[in-house]
Amino acid sequence: MQVFKVGHTMSGLVAGVALSGIFSGNALAADAVQAKEAVNKPMMADLIKASKPGDWRPLDLQNTLYLDLPQGRVVIELAPNFAPNHVNNIKALVRENYFDGLVILRSQDNYVVQWGDPTEKKEIKTAKKALAEEFTVNYAASLPFTRLPDADGYASQVGHANGMPAGRDPKTGRAWLAHCYGMVGAGRDTASDSGGGTELYVVTGHAPRQLDRNVTLVGRVMQGMELLSSLPRGTGALGFYEKPEQQVPIKSIRIAADVPAADRTNLEVIRTDTPTFTAIVEAQRNRGGDWYKYAAGYIELCNVPIVVRAQK
Amino acid sequence: MQVFKVGHTMSGLVAGVALSGIFSGNALAADAVQAKEAVNKPMMADLIKASKPGDWRPLDLQNTLYLDLPQGRVVIELAPNFAPNHVNNIKALVRENYFDGLVILRSQDNYVVQWGDPTEKKEIKTAKKALAEEFTVNYAASLPFTRLPDADGYASQVGHANGMPAGRDPKTGRAWLAHCYGMVGAGRDTASDSGGGTELYVVTGHAPRQLDRNVTLVGRVMQGMELLSSLPRGTGALGFYEKPEQQVPIKSIRIAADVPAADRTNLEVIRTDTPTFTAIVEAQRNRGGDWYKYAAGYIELCNVPIVVRAQK
Repeated sequence: MQVFKVGHTMSGLVAGVALSGIFSGNALAADAVQAKEAVNKPMMADLIKASKPGDWRPLDLQNTLYLDLPQGRVVIELAPNFAPNHVNNIKALVRENYFDGLVILRSQDNYVVQWGDPTEKKEIKTAKKALAEEFTVNYAASLPFTRLPDADGYASQVGHANGMPAGRDPKTGRAWLAHCYGMVGAGRDTASDSGGGTELYVVTGHAPRQLDRNVTLVGRVMQGMELLSSLPRGTGALGFYEKPEQQVPIKSIRIAADVPAADRTNLEVIRTDTPTFTAIVEAQRNRGGDWYKYAAGYIELCNVPIVVRAQK
Repeated sequence: MQVFKVGHTMSGLVAGVALSGIFSGNALAADAVQAKEAVNKPMMADLIKASKPGDWRPLDLQNTLYLDLPQGRVVIELAPNFAPNHVNNIKALVRENYFDGLVILRSQDNYVVQWGDPTEKKEIKTAKKALAEEFTVNYAASLPFTRLPDADGYASQVGHANGMPAGRDPKTGRAWLAHCYGMVGAGRDTASDSGGGTELYVVTGHAPRQLDRNVTLVGRVMQGMELLSSLPRGTGALGFYEKPEQQVPIKSIRIAADVPAADRTNLEVIRTDTPTFTAIVEAQRNRGGDWYKYAAGYIELCNVPIVVRAQK
């Protein structure tokens, strides 16, 4: 089989893969703009294999959600430093069992899946139905940020903050999460303050970065993305399921810390503020090995792998 | 329901959507970097509604494939001006019924689906098993190209050529197709000339642009993308299905021109060399309407919608 010879994939969330040749010299060789130089440079899989315990951190149990579906578990880590009020509200919704028994009601191809209450009648007890938006946050001194040297069309600076893809603008001092594959956001109506976490969506297609700074992102899917991305697409407008039986029931959403230890999914994520992460990014920017003939010399924010694995 | 109020979506291939407010003025208003100016500017749906017949072209029947699966039909338009030898070879494979009865054998999350012969034993009669690569082509004077003004990290220039996303480099005079969502390529092994179209893949995730100029792209899915993108992900390495029963059988692949008129799927695609297309791109770059609060002022190549609809 012709298989894009691939070194390793760590998780469904790894966009692209650690692939790898010396330029073979043929009719088109003279046309290659940028021949590969470093065939023997380390590839992502090598770097992960050589990583040390300190290159990883466990998910934050107090800010990790388990979305349990008939198909299995989706693990989401929340980002309280980007959306503190939304995160608190979502946790309050979870703790009053608001989401249990609701459904995934939308799957729009190359865009998002979304869940919520199709009846819009379920009582909200302790949480709030809507909140002021948290599209951007002040980042001065508080937010860790490992900047990518690569240019980006949607933000003056991009990089990663505690394992989340983000943009920021030194002119305004604001930072925001970026709509990469697997990011989780709080749906809203036309008014900026009409969301609050009662309806959540997950990006399942090419990064819709035009949504950045227009919706409050609240976290990222760390495992189980394939359970959401493979759902049948809804045939109604915007990918809504037209028949109730097409909706996917949510068994429950729980906060990891509230789940007995035996029932937890213990994961760790690569730290994004380490030399190991920087080396992984470079391994993806200019691929080593013998499969790639041309090195891109660039990596776009949403192609940077943020590797997750079972906790060691 | 909170639904990202969306104006219109024309096809599963439209990445993101024609969404739409005046900035509502609240605690965070002062932080908005780039307030929206043109609430009343036309949105994509308006432009499509106002388009004229000359803004569209029918798919080229001689270079359109119908991939018929149990789930339905996937329509692929080939790009002979970018990969003439691969396109001819794929058409020869189709005409000797090479693909009929083969299977989709791989679905890797946020990357690709791929089909071919899992036994690697099926006889190839008139076509070739492998060809020299067609990673790039000389574009002088021959290839139509509507350049996007937006910068791109993977290519010195990007734009569209006859409805396909592409990059080019004036220094070398070469152009190439870009790995956006829905693009179709010819898998290969390590050697550049080890592909030829017997195994084809389709991009089902965030654009893996690092593959540009490393694999021969041959065309784009114009309809039915959701049939491929929603397939269960394979649990083997690289997303290969581990059990034969998980593979998806290919009923047949046919060239549209070879199919009786009554069995054809008659589609038309927006022309990418018209003022209407340029206006659509601008409508997506700086969204009008009242939903968006912040206009990106930028559009990334793979977020440009190349709209397909039933032929009128």
